[in-house]
Amino acid sequence: MVEVERFGEPTNELWEYLEIEIPVGVSNRHVHLSQQDLEMLFGHGHRLKARRELGQPGEFAAEEVVTLVGPRGVIEGVRIVGPLRDKTQVEISMTDAYRLGLRPPVRKSGDLEGTPGIAVVGPKGVVALGEGVILAARHIHMHTREAEKLGLKNDDRVRVRVAGERAQIMENVIIRVSDKYRLEMHVDTDEANAALLTNGDTVTILH
Amino acid sequence: MVEVERFGEPTNELWEYLEIEIPVGVSNRHVHLSQQDLEMLFGHGHRLKARRELGQPGEFAAEEVVTLVGPRGVIEGVRIVGPLRDKTQVEISMTDAYRLGLRPPVRKSGDLEGTPGIAVVGPKGVVALGEGVILAARHIHMHTREAEKLGLKNDDRVRVRVAGERAQIMENVIIRVSDKYRLEMHVDTDEANAALLTNGDTVTILH
Repeated sequence: MVEVERFGEPTNELWEYLEIEIPVGVSNRHVHLSQQDLEMLFGHGHRLKARRELGQPGEFAAEEVVTLVGPRGVIEGVRIVGPLRDKTQVEISMTDAYRLGLRPPVRKSGDLEGTPGIAVVGPKGVVALGEGVILAARHIHMHTREAEKLGLKNDDRVRVRVAGERAQIMENVIIRVSDKYRLEMHVDTDEANAALLTNGDTVTILH
Repeated sequence: MVEVERFGEPTNELWEYLEIEIPVGVSNRHVHLSQQDLEMLFGHGHRLKARRELGQPGEFAAEEVVTLVGPRGVIEGVRIVGPLRDKTQVEISMTDAYRLGLRPPVRKSGDLEGTPGIAVVGPKGVVALGEGVILAARHIHMHTREAEKLGLKNDDRVRVRVAGERAQIMENVIIRVSDKYRLEMHVDTDEANAALLTNGDTVTILH
């Protein structure tokens, strides 16, 4: 689990320049399931078993894994992330997409219209998704109070700087605001590996 | 092969601002071999067979492939890139590195001191490298004339902008100048996938 408790009350002028440190959480490929698909894959009445809490309150990596089967390849051991959602959603990296033979678009979570489908295989059954595979758009979760202090609102886009040997500035980073969120930037494994980021590293929002 | 012939004589003021389009070449994992290691892996007197020319004159992807065996995993079908070199060098992505169980540094080609080793397996033998595995530092090849016009010299570092949904600015991009080079930026597959770049896309140098 990444560190998510570094954000305190503003103590100096750094705040005004948005130069706060944002902890990074790297999202490996994973699947969010609907109740119906959960039962199809793992059996009637099945309940997910939490294996590890994730950075956002209530979210957890489950014990359960599935196999993804695309037109050109297979990836086994893909983690289910709970809790359940209204619609099943498969989040992969572009590296995974080449392996599976898919070309998913970059999308915000839940925005699945027109995305490719895939076969998901569990121990008790198979679900043939008609849509639901995405490259998750990079984003920063923040609490409503934090967003207010930073002058940001939900769906704003910011630029983020990563330091180090593979230093870079990422554009089009979406701000996601809720009373339930903790400050954390989510990137996928391609983005993390390209920038040599690992869980708990920090980045800064550029003003 | 990427397009490498777009670079002509300067015709307008864009030149002065370095806003030329640089074609991108994505480097998948590959191995450069020494004569000795070539013969160890493929047999005495073996000569590489060219399969496909690459963007830089004289460079080619060979028919030959090897298997990389690291402490935690194996990657098969890794392409040999010719011509032969003084020292064997294995270029992988960080995604590959996790799979193999290695932590190679970002290095310029040929700068192998202190890098991790790996086992390379061919049809006729095995080479246990004591060093030679790197994440290739991203770089732009350019002809001496082009570098002069752009006011750049070998080993300079520039910033490069990638457009698109995953727009970004890459820092620490190394300039490599030679009378033998054609204008082309080389990135590895993590960098390409993170920025949604494919062969023949173009990027710009920021001034």
